[in-house]
Amino acid sequence: MTETPIDPVPVVEIARLGQHIGEEVRIQGWVYNLRESGKLLFPLFRDGTGLLQAVVFQKNVSPELFAQVRSLTQESSIHARGVVRADQRAPGGVELDLHVLTVLQLVPASDPYPISPKEHGIDFLMDHRHLWLRSQRQAAILRVRHQVIRAVRDFFDNEGYVLADAPILTPAACEGTSTLFEVQYFDDKAFLTQSGQLYAEAAAMALGKTYCFGPTFRAEKSKTRRHLTEFWMVEPETAFAQLDDIMHLAEKLVTAVVARVLEHCRNELKTLERNPAPLEAIQLPFPRISYDEALSRIQTAGSEMKWGDDLGGGDETLLSKQFDRPVMVHRYPASAKAFYMQPDPERPEVALCVDMLAPEGYGEIVGGSQRIHDLNLLRQRLEEHHLAEADFRWYLDLRRWGSVPHGGFGMGIERVVAWICGLEHIRETIPFPRTIYRIFP
Amino acid sequence: MTETPIDPVPVVEIARLGQHIGEEVRIQGWVYNLRESGKLLFPLFRDGTGLLQAVVFQKNVSPELFAQVRSLTQESSIHARGVVRADQRAPGGVELDLHVLTVLQLVPASDPYPISPKEHGIDFLMDHRHLWLRSQRQAAILRVRHQVIRAVRDFFDNEGYVLADAPILTPAACEGTSTLFEVQYFDDKAFLTQSGQLYAEAAAMALGKTYCFGPTFRAEKSKTRRHLTEFWMVEPETAFAQLDDIMHLAEKLVTAVVARVLEHCRNELKTLERNPAPLEAIQLPFPRISYDEALSRIQTAGSEMKWGDDLGGGDETLLSKQFDRPVMVHRYPASAKAFYMQPDPERPEVALCVDMLAPEGYGEIVGGSQRIHDLNLLRQRLEEHHLAEADFRWYLDLRRWGSVPHGGFGMGIERVVAWICGLEHIRETIPFPRTIYRIFP
Repeated sequence: MTETPIDPVPVVEIARLGQHIGEEVRIQGWVYNLRESGKLLFPLFRDGTGLLQAVVFQKNVSPELFAQVRSLTQESSIHARGVVRADQRAPGGVELDLHVLTVLQLVPASDPYPISPKEHGIDFLMDHRHLWLRSQRQAAILRVRHQVIRAVRDFFDNEGYVLADAPILTPAACEGTSTLFEVQYFDDKAFLTQSGQLYAEAAAMALGKTYCFGPTFRAEKSKTRRHLTEFWMVEPETAFAQLDDIMHLAEKLVTAVVARVLEHCRNELKTLERNPAPLEAIQLPFPRISYDEALSRIQTAGSEMKWGDDLGGGDETLLSKQFDRPVMVHRYPASAKAFYMQPDPERPEVALCVDMLAPEGYGEIVGGSQRIHDLNLLRQRLEEHHLAEADFRWYLDLRRWGSVPHGGFGMGIERVVAWICGLEHIRETIPFPRTIYRIFP
Repeated sequence: MTETPIDPVPVVEIARLGQHIGEEVRIQGWVYNLRESGKLLFPLFRDGTGLLQAVVFQKNVSPELFAQVRSLTQESSIHARGVVRADQRAPGGVELDLHVLTVLQLVPASDPYPISPKEHGIDFLMDHRHLWLRSQRQAAILRVRHQVIRAVRDFFDNEGYVLADAPILTPAACEGTSTLFEVQYFDDKAFLTQSGQLYAEAAAMALGKTYCFGPTFRAEKSKTRRHLTEFWMVEPETAFAQLDDIMHLAEKLVTAVVARVLEHCRNELKTLERNPAPLEAIQLPFPRISYDEALSRIQTAGSEMKWGDDLGGGDETLLSKQFDRPVMVHRYPASAKAFYMQPDPERPEVALCVDMLAPEGYGEIVGGSQRIHDLNLLRQRLEEHHLAEADFRWYLDLRRWGSVPHGGFGMGIERVVAWICGLEHIRETIPFPRTIYRIFP
């Protein structure tokens, strides 16, 4: 490997070459591909911002340069110099007339880059996730994920929500310990958080409108295409909010996220072969149906689900396929939901809660509720759920001093990315996925 | 507690009352304080966006309302209705002429809110952190933290960096296991990440410019005012970057963060009694001195530090007090630093690394380096540091296929917030701090 040469010609990112037509530039990156057509060589370079086709015509360059380009191998790292030319047929609309090439590291033919353009099995790709990210498809998903996260943060910031990060290390279980990862915390035990909600409730009493946004953990032995053990969740919490406010906030958020991706990631959606039409249909307002209506629709569609059951993955798919935008199902049976959900005063056997199901069979992306604000009712629910009051002492304090109606929801980032990108499996939505059988690399 | 009444008068956030002078509005929030002056009552309300003084003149209201206001206790939750009046003497520049009050929960005199305006010990406050956040001072710190994080993300997004979150659960230690928290991962062991850097390096080879930003963990038995066991860190990584690029990126970032806080958080800095003048001095460029020069300055100032030692907390303070803006100390002895740092080609006993020390004695806020990009040198360093090559197999792959010079840094959010807010102790910079002796609430 050689050191980077000093060169007065400016380094330009591939995505910005369109502003340098006719100019001499340098690019730095990696060889993505090499195509040969008689006396013409077409190396394809990538630099993280885009793909660039360079052209080398044998009669215009020295035999040494021609041979050097011809010897390029996939993922060799390079500096290239040349003149930018507009070409509508080329990826990105520009080509590079290459005249100087510096190879930083030539990947040897004897030890080639492991991920060739041929098909590989998913285990092989996941074992090489640190390299697989370089593929156009995986990099496109990461860019969509980036815009989804950015849109979420911008949305809450613009709505006046103050970020208050919840802790990852927690002393007790939010909803029982069976799905918690245990951590050795000096001479004590701790657990990885499943949700920042309880902490967000405390922050909402301080800040009025708040959100937390970080990794959360579930030690579920699920092997479905919708489950990761480590995933990112955004959780807004609003003082004085009631169920309708929560539903409206959730639909505005999802609409803003989809709009942002459509605005910034058209090329990525194309790379992913994701039809943007279903995303363009995501407009306010979203349909809202009660659990009872959802049940009747699901039963009509052939499910054996009964009143009192939570919706299974198959039921969610049956239902969400009936709508062209996310559907909000509210007022589930209280018995199927978490201890902290406020009962409907007009019908206490149902909770003032909502799940939002993404269209196209992608299932639940948002789950939320109004929270119980009455101290005695909350105590009663802890007891009914066999949760120790001592573990929730500080949480009960929020109902003891200055309690107000409040509520919020959690939105799982990976499920949203899977839906927006049209992915079969959630494992491609996060840079380094963690599942029951995978904690490498 | 009563249910929220239906009322046609709009609910307005306290921070936005200045746009409603002369209008009738409702506010919803909590009682912060109550002052009485003869026939006048001045309840002070908070709603998370600001503080509002209301006025109740005995002869203008019913005896019932006067008595009701007079009975208000700290942190009782309320809805209040009245007319907004400009008043320069009042906090926020407006007052509320209160005529309707609905008390949602009256905190009883027999069980008062635990955090009264009197002084409390730090253990008591930390045990009541879920309530302490409601104090003006703590809420101001959280708002500064929010703007710091927002500024960091905006900065990298605008510079073309793509977010790629590193995993929290990792299979092996980045720099030895002595300061790692161990997690029971199904039938296996895992560790909580200390740094996303190694993963960010993989992402940089895919995306060119990337950053990760999440919680990180150190099981250090440190009890200093600068240490938390759980803290948030942003870590950019740039392909093709060399030490000078890394230093320039770091100084631009810190300048942008400080400018954002000065733009958005003047009131918060006032609440914190933080003199903004030292922050206004934070302008580009930052001083850059070599480790050798730093050592000589520190020795002159009386330290017994010797060449080869890392800077201790006291040394950092001695040095940083000599500058009116953050100082970047580069090229430390390689032996004092991590295994992955690129040696200076002109002087291999020093590493191409940099630490940025905040002014006013706040110590290290940024640590970064150029990374070793040569496969054989990296292997040699792993061996010298007694790290098993098998644990770093995927990391070595980055040097095997398409290796390029690259580098980055980590910036600890809590230390930056402590410095900007002028705090004595880092524990107030995060909503729910975790230290060796504290994992509650």
